Amino acid sequence: MTSTVAVIGLGAMGLPMAARLAERFDVSGFDIAADRLELAAERGVRAAGSAAEAASGADVVLVAVRTGEQLESLLFGEQPLAEHLRPGAAVLLTSTVGTSGIADVAARLEAIGAHLVDAPLSGGPVRAGEGDLLIVVGASDAALVVARPVLEQLASTLSIVGDRPGDGQALKTVNQLLCGVHIAAAAEALALADALGLDRERTLDALQAGAAGSFMLGNRGPRALQAYDEGGAEVLSRLDIFVKDLGIVGDAARAHYLATPVAAAAEQLFLLGEAAGLGDRDDSAVIRVVAPNRRS
Amino acid sequence: MTSTVAVIGLGAMGLPMAARLAERFDVSGFDIAADRLELAAERGVRAAGSAAEAASGADVVLVAVRTGEQLESLLFGEQPLAEHLRPGAAVLLTSTVGTSGIADVAARLEAIGAHLVDAPLSGGPVRAGEGDLLIVVGASDAALVVARPVLEQLASTLSIVGDRPGDGQALKTVNQLLCGVHIAAAAEALALADALGLDRERTLDALQAGAAGSFMLGNRGPRALQAYDEGGAEVLSRLDIFVKDLGIVGDAARAHYLATPVAAAAEQLFLLGEAAGLGDRDDSAVIRVVAPNRRS
Repeated sequence: MTSTVAVIGLGAMGLPMAARLAERFDVSGFDIAADRLELAAERGVRAAGSAAEAASGADVVLVAVRTGEQLESLLFGEQPLAEHLRPGAAVLLTSTVGTSGIADVAARLEAIGAHLVDAPLSGGPVRAGEGDLLIVVGASDAALVVARPVLEQLASTLSIVGDRPGDGQALKTVNQLLCGVHIAAAAEALALADALGLDRERTLDALQAGAAGSFMLGNRGPRALQAYDEGGAEVLSRLDIFVKDLGIVGDAARAHYLATPVAAAAEQLFLLGEAAGLGDRDDSAVIRVVAPNRRS
Repeated sequence: MTSTVAVIGLGAMGLPMAARLAERFDVSGFDIAADRLELAAERGVRAAGSAAEAASGADVVLVAVRTGEQLESLLFGEQPLAEHLRPGAAVLLTSTVGTSGIADVAARLEAIGAHLVDAPLSGGPVRAGEGDLLIVVGASDAALVVARPVLEQLASTLSIVGDRPGDGQALKTVNQLLCGVHIAAAAEALALADALGLDRERTLDALQAGAAGSFMLGNRGPRALQAYDEGGAEVLSRLDIFVKDLGIVGDAARAHYLATPVAAAAEQLFLLGEAAGLGDRDDSAVIRVVAPNRRS
């Protein structure tokens, strides 16, 4: 029975996930930032003095870090958390870090009797706090026995895409290729519609109803039309996330000698967005790169 | 009352449209190819000896040509069809030819008391014969009074996007930007999924259910997975249509000094497809450009 959970990293996603898990499990948390630890304590999470202390004896150790390097350093670095894992514990990686190195981390954990559950997610902080995330998982059956109750507390859609750690990252990588391209294409399309003198709202409706439709056109299209308003659209997903994730897409494609010119062009637009100071804006603001002087 | 219709151009789209219209109107048709004229006659269309003869006295003259140059040459060239139009007649342009020159053609028709109805369509030959097309229209109210019964006989979805001829072409151009990019992105995504060792059908389902979903991923994704089978997927829409239409997108964006790098990258993939001899294949075959040696 899974009863104790550690959450390492109490950032924008880690904190609401820890709070959500504390509704059902005994949750300890750690973050290097003292204020995040305090916020977590206010929401029912036991504040630990170190990652190792948080993880000691936990059935599941949820790791919400930014990069694969941070994951490896946390588990096997100078103060190796791996040494504090109880036998059979599952390390639940919720970050999108790409497939590179995942198999190696999984093997090193298996060697000490622990499991890696590769579980990148989508949904943002609000949905994280409500257990309304989409999580794609690559993990062995043994790992899932321990981790499933935790995943089910966080996800409204749980998709087990393969039995190898890395399968979750792979699917998330492909997912982000499409999401990033669709957002960038929506920006180009709406900027072109505007240049051609079309009514923007009517155009968006007509496009979305037919073969041009996509989840992202419907979701980000209306927000792109707000990108020139004061402050732009509410930030539901930051633009710099696609700088990171399309970088992961490029790395993955390159590693397999695969040309993905459409994804690469989208990546360039998001990089231009970052360079233009839009990294912390909603990702729909990428339209400001395509048409900086577009009439609002 | 609209009762007589001429159809100029009895090709892949013109012929089934003429047959569909003959169920309701007195339809005369013309094509320079005698065999197309014969096929049309078998389906209830009066075969005319020339475009001028077909158009004489018609309430609506449907023009299904390939390019804007052909349209202008037909109407105002050496044997100008415009001279044979009855007062108040509507010239119904169903081709996707881009916005360039449309306003000029419309003005020249207005000067002789006729109208241009700019009505590019989507849907393919089968749907054309069943009155199941999507048609986006830019036309004045006066022109629509005459043309609407004809449009309604052809379309299941009729979207009046503006009152100027050119508005239909503009919307179709933006539509094709998104469609072309989404098909190319689906190809890149499925090729990457394959390279990363994911199960392709399961991946497609997981992607389409979430934020990565698009009409084209759902429609062309399964057909892209057939692209390596003998002959590939059934040709529902030819790859070279996107060579043409993304060319129109590029021209339109260029004319407005707009950079559309994602659409431009997609265009390059379709051009590579044409160069690889895939022009007459289903457009989902563009995946063979991305991954020529992909395991089937």
